[in-house]
Amino acid sequence: MQGTLEQAIEAVVGETVRVDGSGRTDAGAHATAQVIAFSTESALSPAVLGRAINAHLPLDIALTRVEDVAPDFHPRYDAQSRVYRYLIWNRPVRSPFWLGRAAHVSYPLDERRMHQALQQLLGQRDFGAFVAANAPADRTRTLYNASCRREGDLVIVELEADGFLKQMVRAMVGTVIQVGGGKLSIADFLTLATSGDRRKTGPTAPAAGLYLARVNYADSTEQTNGGLAETDRGFSRREETA
Amino acid sequence: MQGTLEQAIEAVVGETVRVDGSGRTDAGAHATAQVIAFSTESALSPAVLGRAINAHLPLDIALTRVEDVAPDFHPRYDAQSRVYRYLIWNRPVRSPFWLGRAAHVSYPLDERRMHQALQQLLGQRDFGAFVAANAPADRTRTLYNASCRREGDLVIVELEADGFLKQMVRAMVGTVIQVGGGKLSIADFLTLATSGDRRKTGPTAPAAGLYLARVNYADSTEQTNGGLAETDRGFSRREETA
Repeated sequence: MQGTLEQAIEAVVGETVRVDGSGRTDAGAHATAQVIAFSTESALSPAVLGRAINAHLPLDIALTRVEDVAPDFHPRYDAQSRVYRYLIWNRPVRSPFWLGRAAHVSYPLDERRMHQALQQLLGQRDFGAFVAANAPADRTRTLYNASCRREGDLVIVELEADGFLKQMVRAMVGTVIQVGGGKLSIADFLTLATSGDRRKTGPTAPAAGLYLARVNYADSTEQTNGGLAETDRGFSRREETA
Repeated sequence: MQGTLEQAIEAVVGETVRVDGSGRTDAGAHATAQVIAFSTESALSPAVLGRAINAHLPLDIALTRVEDVAPDFHPRYDAQSRVYRYLIWNRPVRSPFWLGRAAHVSYPLDERRMHQALQQLLGQRDFGAFVAANAPADRTRTLYNASCRREGDLVIVELEADGFLKQMVRAMVGTVIQVGGGKLSIADFLTLATSGDRRKTGPTAPAAGLYLARVNYADSTEQTNGGLAETDRGFSRREETA
């Protein structure tokens, strides 16, 4: 991804660029709202630059917005929170349309119970019960928002936190699905979720259902694009991948 | 498609079957509501049969409903009408998510004008202005319903007719897009659409945006599943393909 972006940008600006991103997403997940930044001496406007770079990108990657940012803007370190969305196709029969874009759960899910269970986890806590084996020692994160809703046959989980550990969203979804299917009570969900023990929580939901939906920055970061020297322009772009 | 379905069914029922479908769709289009029928001596219930066949089908094909039908039911000849849906991603920047699933039109479309234009074509008429080169001599079809609406960045065209000529939907969409983009007046659209001359109408919209959304049958056909001999059961199934 990073190399592909750098190649496309370099083809347009004619200089070597280094792309910084807002963070890695799990392999197979969809980085629909990834934010990246790079510096260039190009005199092209952000809009023209965006169109030109898109013309050099493969069709499954696109810049959806390009804007000037402060020279010291970093899409990863300046991020205040990230929002992940997880899609579950919840019908007895699988959907070829959602193949690779949503997890399939064939038994009925109670999205209201799932929503209630997730509310238990709001706030700052140790999310060690939802981490991959190689997670860092500090597993404390702050969950700002959590929701589960249904749109027809799709059950949609959304989680916003100051940061996510590797596979954390997928482990949380895999566990809350057990609540939605009636296999786990909301009280037991909270017990397991706060146990710090990954062996007690549910399976890791497949990456195909996972979308990076938004990266939030402090307003100040997004409004500091006034006083940039022409020779040190930065660009942040939102980019979608399928 | 037909061969793949026959193989999966034969693996379940242990006899040679012949699958009849409701008709061909353009290569690259999505047969999300295709209806097929076959006869079998299997004693399995429709629901069990459907699950077993799905287990033998590749993931991009699925039976979504299976039911008994009259022995003489034919999904193509008994069809009263077909509904096609066409999806247009209408934003300046392409969408990796909709890649292969919707056409991309980067300039703004006025979906109300498109809707108005399509209303001009309701009823029985010669659709020769929207046919592929190798279309049959009789190009008279009856358009029962036509609509165009917007859902966010998607513009959705729906057409229901007693039958569609090859590439007819895609040619109609390609032409009505010119109305939506302000390149063609509604009056001129009607003139071109009724000219019988394919060279005067717009380009053929890409197959990726085209979905077979529904095949309608007379109620009587769907309700004649009472008196079938056990040795001559028919099954019609809805099937989705991505």
